[in-house]
Amino acid sequence: MALIVHKYGGTSMGSTERIRNVAKRVAKWVRAGHQIVVVPSAMSGETNRLLGLAKELSDSPSPRELDMIASTGEQVSVGLLAIALQAEGLDAVSYAGWQVPVRTDSSFTKARIESIDDARVRADLNAGRVVIITGFQGVDPNGNITTLGRGGSDTSAVAIAAAMKADECLIYTDVDGVYTTDPRVVPEARRLKSVSFEEMLEMASLGSKVLQIRSVEFAGKYRVPLRVLSSFTPWDIDLAEEAKSGTLISFEEDEKMEQAVVSGIAFTRDEAKITVVGVPDTPGIAYQILGKVADANIDVDVIIQNVSHDGKTDFSFTVPRGDHTRAMEILKTQVVPALGAREVVGDAKIAKVSIVGIASTMFKTLSDEGINIQMITTSEIKTSVVIDEKYLELAVRALHKAFGLDEAKA
Amino acid sequence: MALIVHKYGGTSMGSTERIRNVAKRVAKWVRAGHQIVVVPSAMSGETNRLLGLAKELSDSPSPRELDMIASTGEQVSVGLLAIALQAEGLDAVSYAGWQVPVRTDSSFTKARIESIDDARVRADLNAGRVVIITGFQGVDPNGNITTLGRGGSDTSAVAIAAAMKADECLIYTDVDGVYTTDPRVVPEARRLKSVSFEEMLEMASLGSKVLQIRSVEFAGKYRVPLRVLSSFTPWDIDLAEEAKSGTLISFEEDEKMEQAVVSGIAFTRDEAKITVVGVPDTPGIAYQILGKVADANIDVDVIIQNVSHDGKTDFSFTVPRGDHTRAMEILKTQVVPALGAREVVGDAKIAKVSIVGIASTMFKTLSDEGINIQMITTSEIKTSVVIDEKYLELAVRALHKAFGLDEAKA
Repeated sequence: MALIVHKYGGTSMGSTERIRNVAKRVAKWVRAGHQIVVVPSAMSGETNRLLGLAKELSDSPSPRELDMIASTGEQVSVGLLAIALQAEGLDAVSYAGWQVPVRTDSSFTKARIESIDDARVRADLNAGRVVIITGFQGVDPNGNITTLGRGGSDTSAVAIAAAMKADECLIYTDVDGVYTTDPRVVPEARRLKSVSFEEMLEMASLGSKVLQIRSVEFAGKYRVPLRVLSSFTPWDIDLAEEAKSGTLISFEEDEKMEQAVVSGIAFTRDEAKITVVGVPDTPGIAYQILGKVADANIDVDVIIQNVSHDGKTDFSFTVPRGDHTRAMEILKTQVVPALGAREVVGDAKIAKVSIVGIASTMFKTLSDEGINIQMITTSEIKTSVVIDEKYLELAVRALHKAFGLDEAKA
Repeated sequence: MALIVHKYGGTSMGSTERIRNVAKRVAKWVRAGHQIVVVPSAMSGETNRLLGLAKELSDSPSPRELDMIASTGEQVSVGLLAIALQAEGLDAVSYAGWQVPVRTDSSFTKARIESIDDARVRADLNAGRVVIITGFQGVDPNGNITTLGRGGSDTSAVAIAAAMKADECLIYTDVDGVYTTDPRVVPEARRLKSVSFEEMLEMASLGSKVLQIRSVEFAGKYRVPLRVLSSFTPWDIDLAEEAKSGTLISFEEDEKMEQAVVSGIAFTRDEAKITVVGVPDTPGIAYQILGKVADANIDVDVIIQNVSHDGKTDFSFTVPRGDHTRAMEILKTQVVPALGAREVVGDAKIAKVSIVGIASTMFKTLSDEGINIQMITTSEIKTSVVIDEKYLELAVRALHKAFGLDEAKA
């Protein structure tokens, strides 16, 4: 008997028919003797619908109230799944984050999990119940509902698995594992049977949508065995087969079976570029510019500072596309006047393409395709470039081929 | 400065445009110097949508899980209204029932409010905030979400007004007050400027949809001044005029200004009739039959027992139409075999028509129209008859005319 956390994404929960399938799959695991905790996302489209209503009422809705609204999507899901499991003849009970409780800080819309009390959940499991817990949300020290940000249900599942010392955390999703790149862009993309934790972290940080980055960080910190697999296989496939399917996020050095020079190509359209033009090149300008942006809780990614001419320089960086307008406003009203910079220019029509691994071929490949590189960043094991969004598909396909990812390896 | 509770129904909250109107109306009251607590219902259609999803998964969904699901409708409403009020420049904060907390018993889907802690709400009001609290729901002693049953937001509003000793509770709805009967059935129906608490209680118990009966009971018990008024007047009408509009539920004897023989005609299609045929006429059969039904938490209304023939009698009563199938099942499997009765027959196609007041003319009027009376019950101030549903409109119109309710009185 193992304790296993199942996480199902929005597409897997997208209709009552799909929810019934999830229930049948969970029932199969329970009947095989396992204790199961399920963390479902909101039904697909629901979170967007709810946030859309809020946006109709205000251009800058209160984050606390957004969390109050958005958290209901998962609450509906857990109740529906409990009912579906009961219809399968299982004993099941659902909890919202605050009922467990899943305690977070008070950073509404991007809260961080601080602790999880597993007493209630463990008592239910020991009483033979399937426990269903809302993903994506928790409760702050003042009893306010918080959410973890988009994709936060992955993080919830991993955090619950960590808190309960679960034997494995299975992330059921609409793809059947982690690929060398997005198969919708590169048909030759291959599924990886396993990927190291570090590589997965890079791929997630670089925009791979398969797993939310914080869930991978959490899994790494608490060494939660993690597997990404499909919820679109028939629910009644053999359990042993299902348990080995998908991609394992491995913590064991010797499990890194597919050592390629480049293990994957990631990309994202979720960022926008900002350049502060004509900044006096004095010590501390990076802090003066980025400090104000960080104060507004906006994450900064790729950062470059040009060499200066006549004591002036240009300072560029990327921010999440959704924060672009707000970041531009902060820079225009607070930073440019204070620094005596010339202006701020933005560009939301960019894409970021990254390779995980060492990057000798990358620049040549992009050059051969005539794709202009706007920004570059590198770290020990990744290289990212920012390019015009219209070249995204071309760049990813060319790189996938150039790095030999089209062909399966032993 | 007064402390006033506003309650807005589902139609009033039916779209972001309508929510914006509610926010403007509330803002008008706040700017006139009042402290306002708002209790909104779910957006119209939302509760049905949510319960419909549950019904797709199970014929008999768990009441606890139904409450988990249905309570989200109001949670979305409070968040949206808070955002709309903030967009109007007001400081506003929303709370789910469990956050206040509104404590209830554990009767899922039909919970009763036991206590309300007003400390958090009062602190917000004193800090100049509008406080928005979910209607329809609370939290039980084990931290489970409970709902009060359909229309429960009226009860929430009145209970909150009672707990906070509010100066008035204004029930904003899609009609402009309490009428002598439903204006959709009888165009000559008149709005009552005031109605006594006792009359309102009878009208609510008899199926008038304007106020939920438990909210009237609560208002009576705690003497909460209650007014039913329209949320469809322009939001910017004069506040003094708005404050006097609609129908006042009066507790003062001398405020009963419109003393008619019959103050109103109520009707409902929400019931179904059940007859247990061929019951041995021995002492205790009423308890033996109705006890089992009550054990299943099914409310029984009109009850009649025919005179017996050959030691056998027929026993009839009405139940909520939604509980009809369940009640029939209980009777067939548990009661008929135990009693040695012949059979159970049911009829969901009935309507109940009631007059509030003394009933001399009622039977003659129905007889003149050729409407067969199936069952009759009377109490000190009401008379109800059960008739074939197809005669409902005819009966209500005829009675409204017969009792002179078409003409306004001084």
